[in-house]
Amino acid sequence: MGRTTWMISAGHIPLRSTGREPENTSRDELCFLNAGYREAQVEVTLFYADREPVGPYRLEIPPRRIRRVRVNNLINPEAPPLDTDYGAVIESNVPIVVQFERTDTSDAKPAMPAIMGFAT
Amino acid sequence: MGRTTWMISAGHIPLRSTGREPENTSRDELCFLNAGYREAQVEVTLFYADREPVGPYRLEIPPRRIRRVRVNNLINPEAPPLDTDYGAVIESNVPIVVQFERTDTSDAKPAMPAIMGFAT
Amino acid sequence: MGRTTWMISAGHIPLRSTGREPENTSRDELCFLNAGYREAQVEVTLFYADREPVGPYRLEIPPRRIRRVRVNNLINPEAPPLDTDYGAVIESNVPIVVQFERTDTSDAKPAMPAIMGFAT
Amino acid sequence: MGRTTWMISAGHIPLRSTGREPENTSRDELCFLNAGYREAQVEVTLFYADREPVGPYRLEIPPRRIRRVRVNNLINPEAPPLDTDYGAVIESNVPIVVQFERTDTSDAKPAMPAIMGFAT
Repeated sequence: MGRTTWMISAGHIPLRSTGREPENTSRDELCFLNAGYREAQVEVTLFYADREPVGPYRLEIPPRRIRRVRVNNLINPEAPPLDTDYGAVIESNVPIVVQFERTDTSDAKPAMPAIMGFAT
Repeated sequence: MGRTTWMISAGHIPLRSTGREPENTSRDELCFLNAGYREAQVEVTLFYADREPVGPYRLEIPPRRIRRVRVNNLINPEAPPLDTDYGAVIESNVPIVVQFERTDTSDAKPAMPAIMGFAT
Repeated sequence: MGRTTWMISAGHIPLRSTGREPENTSRDELCFLNAGYREAQVEVTLFYADREPVGPYRLEIPPRRIRRVRVNNLINPEAPPLDTDYGAVIESNVPIVVQFERTDTSDAKPAMPAIMGFAT
Repeated sequence: MGRTTWMISAGHIPLRSTGREPENTSRDELCFLNAGYREAQVEVTLFYADREPVGPYRLEIPPRRIRRVRVNNLINPEAPPLDTDYGAVIESNVPIVVQFERTDTSDAKPAMPAIMGFAT
């Protein structure tokens, strides 16, 4: 249940945060659901406006589990820059669902409902 | 009209609420539309980051009707924990449409427009 | 370009408004794009939680045009009640695109970006 | 990865802005991801409620890159009017992903998460 390739094109990690850390840190999150019985091995590639893509960032989603990953916390091979537009391609060996949620606390706003990625 | 399997991966019931109860209780809602002429028998399974999925929660949507269900109010087999990330798989015996709406009144913000679930 | 059947399940016209009328009236809007060269003849049916569906409300979208229609302004066969959950099925004789936008000014919040309907 | 035709029907560039220019200018943005190895040649056509469509606006998205384009900044063949509803058809020679993000600072609100366009 789900798809193996997901894309987003409007990523942006806000620079400023207000409130307590880490729950109020401004962030983009990738929200995964692996409803199946096999571990999902996921590769995330980040795309930028004016330099080469960076990746793959490797993640595992256990079977029958969700996992939330802050884009801020992707560090290997390279931490993504703050306040920079990006896109992402997410590829999995098994079908998953990927939503994308932005929490922008730069003006003390709480989290927004997530949008679905595009399942290609 | 619709689909029989829907998924979301970015559920989260906010912990705090402000304003009058119950209309201002922070909540996630599943918004169903059964446009057909047969009752929809729906099973919701909730997925978590670090424990086994819980379900099925059984719901009926009468023919030619909508129904809104607060995730907070799913209690059998088990009330979902507040302030905890979750995903959901929604399966129906007949085609339906499922939107997902978050109302976060922890900072006195009113309801947000709902997003579509992912129809797999 | 587009689809002929669209659905939403999480409609709700807020009861209260603040600010100048009519541009700040709380409302749900159906946003149509007819990119083709034939007039679109559209039928909207509204679904409720506890009574029979109402419709069809008949609309035309000229060829090569957009049109925005406030759900509040659908009056024939019957004006939809305020502060009441509803769903909608939108059927067109030619392919169109339907987005759904909520403007909730009950707490002086401006318009939110629209969501796509579900194209079945 | 992606699609070659995308549509939106609920565009609207807010008239007023607050805060520093240009980062706080109210705007609609088209957010493109070209994950492939060929340059994307994109044509945007804008549709209105009461006059002929305008376009094509021609854009290039380099291979393996994102690009954000403010609808306000589309000027050839004609700058789109502010405070006017519009729709868009976006056609590309290679598959891309298009999200649509509105930043409405007329009431000092920061950016909202983007929605996916409709891939037809």
